[in-house]
Amino acid sequence: MLKSVEISTKRRTEFIDVTDMLRKIVSDSRVKDGICLVYTPHTTCGITINEYADPDVVKDIAAQLEKIAPQNAAYSHVEGNSDAHIKASIIGSSESIIISNSKLILGTWQGVFLCEFDGPRKRTLYIKLLEG
Amino acid sequence: MLKSVEISTKRRTEFIDVTDMLRKIVSDSRVKDGICLVYTPHTTCGITINEYADPDVVKDIAAQLEKIAPQNAAYSHVEGNSDAHIKASIIGSSESIIISNSKLILGTWQGVFLCEFDGPRKRTLYIKLLEG
Amino acid sequence: MLKSVEISTKRRTEFIDVTDMLRKIVSDSRVKDGICLVYTPHTTCGITINEYADPDVVKDIAAQLEKIAPQNAAYSHVEGNSDAHIKASIIGSSESIIISNSKLILGTWQGVFLCEFDGPRKRTLYIKLLEG
Repeated sequence: MLKSVEISTKRRTEFIDVTDMLRKIVSDSRVKDGICLVYTPHTTCGITINEYADPDVVKDIAAQLEKIAPQNAAYSHVEGNSDAHIKASIIGSSESIIISNSKLILGTWQGVFLCEFDGPRKRTLYIKLLEG
Repeated sequence: MLKSVEISTKRRTEFIDVTDMLRKIVSDSRVKDGICLVYTPHTTCGITINEYADPDVVKDIAAQLEKIAPQNAAYSHVEGNSDAHIKASIIGSSESIIISNSKLILGTWQGVFLCEFDGPRKRTLYIKLLEG
Repeated sequence: MLKSVEISTKRRTEFIDVTDMLRKIVSDSRVKDGICLVYTPHTTCGITINEYADPDVVKDIAAQLEKIAPQNAAYSHVEGNSDAHIKASIIGSSESIIISNSKLILGTWQGVFLCEFDGPRKRTLYIKLLEG
């Protein structure tokens, strides 16, 4: 099963919690056991799994990524968003989550986030459920 | 096929080689060809694949991650483990490995590691085998 | 379906665009819907998805990774390629891409790259197509 979802981001850097949406897609599907691949088809955003309970955690992740790849450093690419491309490759374009008994196996504190590094923009998220 | 394993880590930062355990799970299963997803449901540890032969390699990886996200930098999250969350997102929560002829396809020097960034703790590892 | 491909890299650090090759493997296969796992069995290279149109983007990614893990910093591993191992773990050994209607779902600007961090070498790439 394949689904796509549109998400409008509001800031240049923003981690959007998509966990509840993913849980609903999985429970609405007929896939009892398998894998859920969450994929973003953009080159300046990524997908990560981390703590959802305290929003300061993803704030710290975004801030540290900015130290690792500052927006205003000297880059070759002239569009002014090289840092966003670098952050996207560090975080990665997708995450795979196990489906068991029609539910995502996520830890108590785990949430799934679309990581916007060059917003605000309209973004697409693909969710592929593989049975097995 | 889904399996979970408990692992007790002993230090704050520790890379634990789980390769032999994964090989045994795969050879004990009936999955001849497919994918093995190794997943950690925690927000302060990750999974990586790198050299197992010389333990200095993962020591260098852990040390450089500490330079990228130092434990004692100024963070918003007040639990004192923001660095561990950041390292977890850089490394990622899972790895996918190909299964062929009832064996994991790993390179000569590749080992699979649970990366503890906020131990010592009791950790869970999920191993999902998908046939196909 | 499992395929392996040999790639000869020419420089120490090099991002090689394998997108067209992957598209051909997928269209030549009988897999209509599923997942394509691109995997490198080496410990000093990785796989990433990022912009292919402007080669300056991957040049910036490689240059920033060199700032994050410089080749000539002080490391424990004595082979002189610790930076390459660290970069490999940051980027990751694989990427998963959705297959829909016998085609890879990639964004307009997305390309798939083998990231060489310790070349020139002969490298292997495994491509696993999982139907579902």
